[in-house]
Amino acid sequence: MSSSKTRVQGFKFASRSAGIKKNGKFDLAMIYSEKPARCAGVFTTNKVLAPPLVVSAGRIEKGLCQAVVVNSGNANACTGSQGLKDALRTGELAAASLGIGEDLVAVSSTGVIGVPLPMDKFESHVPLLAKELQADNADRLAEAIMTTDLFAKTSSRKGRIGKRDYTILGVAKGAGMIHPNMATMLGFVMTDVEIDSGLLQTVLKETVAKTFNAITVDGDTSTNDMVLLLANGMSGAGPVVADSPEAEEFTRLLHDVLLDLAKMIVRDGEGATKVVQVLVKGAVDDDQARQAARTIATSNLVKTAFFGEDANWGRIIAAAGYSGADLDQDRVEIRFDDVAVVEKGLCVGGDWEDKASEVLRHDEFTVTVDLKLGSGSASYYTSDLTYEYVKINADYRT
Amino acid sequence: MSSSKTRVQGFKFASRSAGIKKNGKFDLAMIYSEKPARCAGVFTTNKVLAPPLVVSAGRIEKGLCQAVVVNSGNANACTGSQGLKDALRTGELAAASLGIGEDLVAVSSTGVIGVPLPMDKFESHVPLLAKELQADNADRLAEAIMTTDLFAKTSSRKGRIGKRDYTILGVAKGAGMIHPNMATMLGFVMTDVEIDSGLLQTVLKETVAKTFNAITVDGDTSTNDMVLLLANGMSGAGPVVADSPEAEEFTRLLHDVLLDLAKMIVRDGEGATKVVQVLVKGAVDDDQARQAARTIATSNLVKTAFFGEDANWGRIIAAAGYSGADLDQDRVEIRFDDVAVVEKGLCVGGDWEDKASEVLRHDEFTVTVDLKLGSGSASYYTSDLTYEYVKINADYRT
Repeated sequence: MSSSKTRVQGFKFASRSAGIKKNGKFDLAMIYSEKPARCAGVFTTNKVLAPPLVVSAGRIEKGLCQAVVVNSGNANACTGSQGLKDALRTGELAAASLGIGEDLVAVSSTGVIGVPLPMDKFESHVPLLAKELQADNADRLAEAIMTTDLFAKTSSRKGRIGKRDYTILGVAKGAGMIHPNMATMLGFVMTDVEIDSGLLQTVLKETVAKTFNAITVDGDTSTNDMVLLLANGMSGAGPVVADSPEAEEFTRLLHDVLLDLAKMIVRDGEGATKVVQVLVKGAVDDDQARQAARTIATSNLVKTAFFGEDANWGRIIAAAGYSGADLDQDRVEIRFDDVAVVEKGLCVGGDWEDKASEVLRHDEFTVTVDLKLGSGSASYYTSDLTYEYVKINADYRT
Repeated sequence: MSSSKTRVQGFKFASRSAGIKKNGKFDLAMIYSEKPARCAGVFTTNKVLAPPLVVSAGRIEKGLCQAVVVNSGNANACTGSQGLKDALRTGELAAASLGIGEDLVAVSSTGVIGVPLPMDKFESHVPLLAKELQADNADRLAEAIMTTDLFAKTSSRKGRIGKRDYTILGVAKGAGMIHPNMATMLGFVMTDVEIDSGLLQTVLKETVAKTFNAITVDGDTSTNDMVLLLANGMSGAGPVVADSPEAEEFTRLLHDVLLDLAKMIVRDGEGATKVVQVLVKGAVDDDQARQAARTIATSNLVKTAFFGEDANWGRIIAAAGYSGADLDQDRVEIRFDDVAVVEKGLCVGGDWEDKASEVLRHDEFTVTVDLKLGSGSASYYTSDLTYEYVKINADYRT
């Protein structure tokens, strides 16, 4: 389902160690499409917007993109007008090296906030990237965007329209500061299907809501998050048009790629030892289910209990209670995987704790909260809160 | 400002070790007023309401209260109809022992969720409490309501009307799960001033909003929180009526008592090593200032940075950015105590980090975020997020 050597017709990648990170690892990368690709983007909801997002959002909006330059080690955030100049200059360097228009270049950054980009490194390395582009190099792109990530994240799916195959390949980064609305999360998705720009944006927004925006590691939302989706049509498959079986299939495949990546981010959550799906059912509607699932998944008390392998359903029902979702405490049911723990708001008694503790010892399990009020449901994916989380984030800059 | 031997005319207290807690510490207490007191209450906003709150809220609403029975070690929450019977029976036992009406007794519980109260212990110990009431025993009340608290919390102030002195004495408990809307927080305030019930409720609500509801340890809100204020008029000072200088003075003194207690709760926050005031100024209005201050104060990334003594203003500005408050990133100013770190959204440069790190080494300091948009301001008090927090909450029930 995920192969680092996956190719997408017409797309090429290059990564370098440009010295932006102190540890000598890859920190600068380029994505290039032989033809200008139709594109869509989803950007952070944080009101503090990093300059690369200001530049990229404006360009993506026009619907065409041919190259992306992304760096790790420095977020180019809270860098004012200098930051904006640097983001524009990065695009200019890429455009000149590739012989394409500046408007076709998106830029993206992740890393430390408040420090100007080391532009000398961009001046010398961006042109080199343009010469090193290769079709089977997406794995190195995934490496180059890592910050506190412990492993590179890629996923792909294949679809078929008529006799033509097409590919969707996604790469992402993110480990801490992950919350709804894509905190410190970058995602780049390349496909060679032919698809309308408007439809592309709709599908991306929908699928991001159910994947990247349904995970939480620590509840913070960053200044730099973006997900870009580029579709160059070069497989010859398509066109995918709205309200067709092909659009449905493409949406499903894109969802699967993004959900793979989202779960990898949770698994890589800073200090995380467990990935927990919080499934809320029986809510008045899907929005309330999402609200309850998010609140439970974000609760520090719930997350530390997961770390302690403590089936502390009291904290779960309390979090549901303050989530704002409608709730009748006498109806609530809670299960850890298949083990029923609470029915009609009361503990089931018996040997529930032994059975539930067994589930909590796994490194992946599902907590189901059934509110028994309606048919709304939603899932959130979360990690446990560990000593290691505190250690990583207390020491990050030092 | 806080003395455990403080007396309030006509109030008596008793505490016992009834065996509800396994460690043999005080776990059951009674507050008694020689005359029925006018009363006011603020209760949790959690939709999962523990039975003692259901019973007490109904009685407090009627405006008179003469006794309170409170236990720690068991929250009597998520205990269904048995829990309701047990809460009622506790009140009945107290009323019979004291020879007063049941409607004049409030009950309150804190501790583990989902386990029925050990009523045999209440049957035998509540009548004994009634016989052990003493006027100078509030310090033992403060002990009896502790759960994960490391120290007992009391505070008092004296006021004067004409030639008569009056006293306000508060006791509180709370260490973890502390967030706006009084998570796992109990507060009992006794005063011997004479004051109208309606005014009492207004003043309590106002002051709780600025004190107990302006602190955060871990963002969770519990099923059991309540603050009760009893005024028996027995000092002869008063009556305090609305819109008078006496009402203003009483409000100020009550605020000071509650703020003392609220800060003690933050200082006692599970695993906390620092108490940080997050002051947001220059917001469009006070509500937006509160929203931004709360978001910054609740951010795990900000709180771990405090623990790491890392002047990570990037996390602070990012939290302000996703708080929902209006914000122009080019105007924001940030200070650690008197050390300016960010001006017009940019780092001031120079030796800011040395100076700011010096401030962060203190165990109490203020972070000021000035949005430079309007005149709205609000403060939140928070603790750092530490290894110890994770340890305490991963192990709580085991």
